Amino acid sequence: MLRLSRLFVRTLREDPADAEVPSHKLLVRAGYIRRAAPGIYTWLPLGLRVLDKVEGIVREEMNAVGGQEVRFPALLPKEPYEATGRWDEYGDNIFRLKDRKGADYLLAPTHEEMFALLVKDLYSSYKDLPLTLYQIQTKYRDEARPRAGLIRGREFVMKDAYTFDIDDAGLDTSYQRQRGAYVRIFERLGLPVCPVSAMSGAMGGSRSEEFLYPTEVGEDTFVRSPGGYAANVEAVTTVPGEPVPIEGQPACHVEDTPDCGTIDQLIAFANRNHPRADRPWTAADTLKNVVVQVIAPDGGRSLLVVGVPGDREVDMTRLAAALDPSDVEMADDDAFKPHPELVRGYIGPEGVLGLNAADAVAQPVPYLLDPRVVAGTRWITGANQPGRHVFDLVAGRDFLAAGQASAKTDEDGKPLVQGTIEAAEVKPGDQAPDGSGPLSLARGMELGHIFQLGRKYAEALGLKVLDPNGKLVTVTMGSYGIGVTRAVAALAEQNHDDKGLIWPVAVAPAHVHVVATGKAAEVFEAAEHLAQDLEAQGVEALYDDRPKVSAGVKFGDAELLGLPYTVIVGKGLADGVVEFRDRLSGESTTIPVGQAAAQVVETVKAALAA
Amino acid sequence: MLRLSRLFVRTLREDPADAEVPSHKLLVRAGYIRRAAPGIYTWLPLGLRVLDKVEGIVREEMNAVGGQEVRFPALLPKEPYEATGRWDEYGDNIFRLKDRKGADYLLAPTHEEMFALLVKDLYSSYKDLPLTLYQIQTKYRDEARPRAGLIRGREFVMKDAYTFDIDDAGLDTSYQRQRGAYVRIFERLGLPVCPVSAMSGAMGGSRSEEFLYPTEVGEDTFVRSPGGYAANVEAVTTVPGEPVPIEGQPACHVEDTPDCGTIDQLIAFANRNHPRADRPWTAADTLKNVVVQVIAPDGGRSLLVVGVPGDREVDMTRLAAALDPSDVEMADDDAFKPHPELVRGYIGPEGVLGLNAADAVAQPVPYLLDPRVVAGTRWITGANQPGRHVFDLVAGRDFLAAGQASAKTDEDGKPLVQGTIEAAEVKPGDQAPDGSGPLSLARGMELGHIFQLGRKYAEALGLKVLDPNGKLVTVTMGSYGIGVTRAVAALAEQNHDDKGLIWPVAVAPAHVHVVATGKAAEVFEAAEHLAQDLEAQGVEALYDDRPKVSAGVKFGDAELLGLPYTVIVGKGLADGVVEFRDRLSGESTTIPVGQAAAQVVETVKAALAA
Repeated sequence: MLRLSRLFVRTLREDPADAEVPSHKLLVRAGYIRRAAPGIYTWLPLGLRVLDKVEGIVREEMNAVGGQEVRFPALLPKEPYEATGRWDEYGDNIFRLKDRKGADYLLAPTHEEMFALLVKDLYSSYKDLPLTLYQIQTKYRDEARPRAGLIRGREFVMKDAYTFDIDDAGLDTSYQRQRGAYVRIFERLGLPVCPVSAMSGAMGGSRSEEFLYPTEVGEDTFVRSPGGYAANVEAVTTVPGEPVPIEGQPACHVEDTPDCGTIDQLIAFANRNHPRADRPWTAADTLKNVVVQVIAPDGGRSLLVVGVPGDREVDMTRLAAALDPSDVEMADDDAFKPHPELVRGYIGPEGVLGLNAADAVAQPVPYLLDPRVVAGTRWITGANQPGRHVFDLVAGRDFLAAGQASAKTDEDGKPLVQGTIEAAEVKPGDQAPDGSGPLSLARGMELGHIFQLGRKYAEALGLKVLDPNGKLVTVTMGSYGIGVTRAVAALAEQNHDDKGLIWPVAVAPAHVHVVATGKAAEVFEAAEHLAQDLEAQGVEALYDDRPKVSAGVKFGDAELLGLPYTVIVGKGLADGVVEFRDRLSGESTTIPVGQAAAQVVETVKAALAA
Repeated sequence: MLRLSRLFVRTLREDPADAEVPSHKLLVRAGYIRRAAPGIYTWLPLGLRVLDKVEGIVREEMNAVGGQEVRFPALLPKEPYEATGRWDEYGDNIFRLKDRKGADYLLAPTHEEMFALLVKDLYSSYKDLPLTLYQIQTKYRDEARPRAGLIRGREFVMKDAYTFDIDDAGLDTSYQRQRGAYVRIFERLGLPVCPVSAMSGAMGGSRSEEFLYPTEVGEDTFVRSPGGYAANVEAVTTVPGEPVPIEGQPACHVEDTPDCGTIDQLIAFANRNHPRADRPWTAADTLKNVVVQVIAPDGGRSLLVVGVPGDREVDMTRLAAALDPSDVEMADDDAFKPHPELVRGYIGPEGVLGLNAADAVAQPVPYLLDPRVVAGTRWITGANQPGRHVFDLVAGRDFLAAGQASAKTDEDGKPLVQGTIEAAEVKPGDQAPDGSGPLSLARGMELGHIFQLGRKYAEALGLKVLDPNGKLVTVTMGSYGIGVTRAVAALAEQNHDDKGLIWPVAVAPAHVHVVATGKAAEVFEAAEHLAQDLEAQGVEALYDDRPKVSAGVKFGDAELLGLPYTVIVGKGLADGVVEFRDRLSGESTTIPVGQAAAQVVETVKAALAA
């Protein structure tokens, strides 16, 4: 039994100064966690009990799909991560250190390499596969902007599982089995997650899904369609229009465009002075060429121009995902200086950039187009001259359309192709790539991420086994993560009101909060007896036995701490009754004291079984 | 149920190349742990089960003495450790790193500072005390020489508890309560530890005891007396003899001592040429002055001369403990160069060193004496001239005896005192400092260490609470550690034979190893049925269901893995019997198959209850 008089907890009336989201505010105010450094938290007794219960649910479901638990170190040598290239790819995002002998180590953000090496170390035959290993372990990321308490931390607990199969069909089966476990885990946690298609990013590999908990405080944007498509916004692929016949389209012409600093002004000018025959020009008819700086993992910087329809912004998150493991930022003045051919505000695709580069430019800046710029589409865009735009510039005629091959060839004589990039923002109403209807957008918090890694890591690290014919084949891997500490934050986001937390019984730090009010010794005796009785029957009780604390303060603390049920032993005891409150519904009932234990036990056990 | 056909384990016939001690060899060979880097290990499924059980026992006993479990980060900012001076004191022994913003962090080797700050953060009154907090958590030390598998690792699991009291009496009570929990933990683990007095070292504070597991592979030397004294060798204090009257002793005289390169030669020379009247000279009558280099935590080096009786070596471990947090090594040639007054091989105490230094030496090297060099003792020692020794040099007459005050004074006019140091080796037969008889020496492995820290940390970090009179008083702390991963190594040291491990049932990865031998389907069916039956009754079974593995290999694996009981289902099944083996006693009995489950369950439950 937990006694509030001795329990190491202090509830706070004020939100912590650095807290912006409900889970962060409430977990700190209710004494579940405490900040130790930016993005680094200490778990106090009540918080640790919640964390343990969440871990327990994850562990049970991992074991249920044949996962075997192991535990890797957090402190790992550089070499395996160098073999797969991730030592460099992670850039500033990992903690690196040297030991006293000067050897390089990292604090691991994830363990693909180590698991692959361990299996290589111990296993050698197809008979050993399939294999599923997992750990629940402390991980590290040197986040640029740790935020929102447990949501984006620098030290956090993850469950990471890895599957090992002899072939793709095996990987599919393992992946589906893990996926099923994820669905059950979030069901048991009562978190209504949405599995969405995802980019695999630095992890490599093919199929990948995120389990997003929809919440305004989430950092991910995802899309859904009425027909069931769901994807992280980074993973959304554009549905390009059909090519348009080029024949019969007007010739392009360069015009002075005074006072056209914005796209709205440009469109108004165009409709006034150079109207289309078929319909008015819209912002979607302008081709906006955005110059960005690409930052390679080794810190090297280079320019890139991205062409997107003028009615869309470049989504830097989508762009970064497309360029992963490189990072990206907008080009600043200094970045433009070595490139006088880039006429700021009037950059156009023809003749100056990448595949279209004039011979005059020795090192053309690479140029990538939005997939919507298909052959035959007609554009207003910069004329590469200050104060001038070009009108009726037709893709595939006046410049290479997205994905179109050039007459130029590479060293092997193959034609060069105009690259495309998924960089334009996704807008509500855009069509789902699978034809399942218009997309809506929402925000979510990534709680899980599952990957079909394939053979990337196995190949880099030489993980092969003998197949039934005695031939060495490379193992195919899957990797499956759940942010366990982040799930605690999601639980707090999902289960709270303006008075405090409201834990589901499966993860509550204790099941029942027993409050003794007033000063009467018999009240405290009855409350103590009840709490002991509950504990004896397997119901976890937190007994507020503080002698000189007002009923109001005790009730406030009970609401803030958020145990699912509260029993109040007070004045009613004289009439032989206690009060039973349900934190979620707010309902209150009166129970004869003699039946209190039995009724509470029944309620708790029913809720646990639900 | 664990099935050996799917269990992630491979037993190895050969000892790992880097393994020297049984626990390291066997835990690797039996597939419990696997090396990831020097001093850094991965826990495989069987090992993790043992670790979890050990943690469970520690947790239960901590809770039983009112400990409240929390969990701190491993990655911590520098500042708290700077406030107590430990950031510097740890020197090379901790892992340090910088985050992306250049802020200094460490991987914590222990958490006194953080616990003190947390309590300061939450508590403010004597009413909140006493308080006991603990965690079971991953810790880091950048050991100079990681060795022996789990025994001296660089990443390891510790239980660290901290008590907070208002006064010394409270600290005593808290200390004794923790001490009791330690005794029970090691009893339940079946580890015959010896609690010994210890130095508190870098931790600061007063009373301190280590719980040593006596073993030849241990790194600590400890002493015991018939009367019950027990101490780590670093903590042994010398019993000095009584002062001897100076009057009537012969005058000192310097002599040529050719061919006296060793103490034996010198003694032989002395007895031949300058015999004592009362008895022959012995090595204990020579005063050996050893020059060492003291290395401060900031890396600064300085010389120190230590005078010990010539029949004893300087024990570098004792010397280092006495100089903690500085480290120490023997002075090399370069260190002597700036000190021509130190005549190597002929250094004597008078006139050249420290308090005795001649005015000619501007910066005398400090000199510390063994406590045995009391006033009136008569010595042969170096004459500070090549090839010459001084005879009948009397402490307190010809040089300052240990602890004796000088006529010289410090800046405040106080007389300077000849410092003493516990640097001489402890020898079997030396008297215990408490008069409880002659000491014997043994080696042990430190599994636990408990400290009365007192107010050192609370003062440095400002941890004060209001006392009953409304006055702010500094809290007094205790700190209590158990090496949990090291305890697993001790368990393997304590419980093995030449065939493999022999786990006590309380910490075994599973209780019963069920082996099916031969090829008969009914044997495998019966074995499977038995294993399931055991599991259903709460007995953990590891079922060796491998189809094409010989009985000999299976028996060998069972012995190597070391579960406490094995049931063999094989040919006997035709006669309705199975074989039941006790791994520890080696005894084998035959049981009717129908009674097997019941009998095994009874045996296991009896052993668990024992």
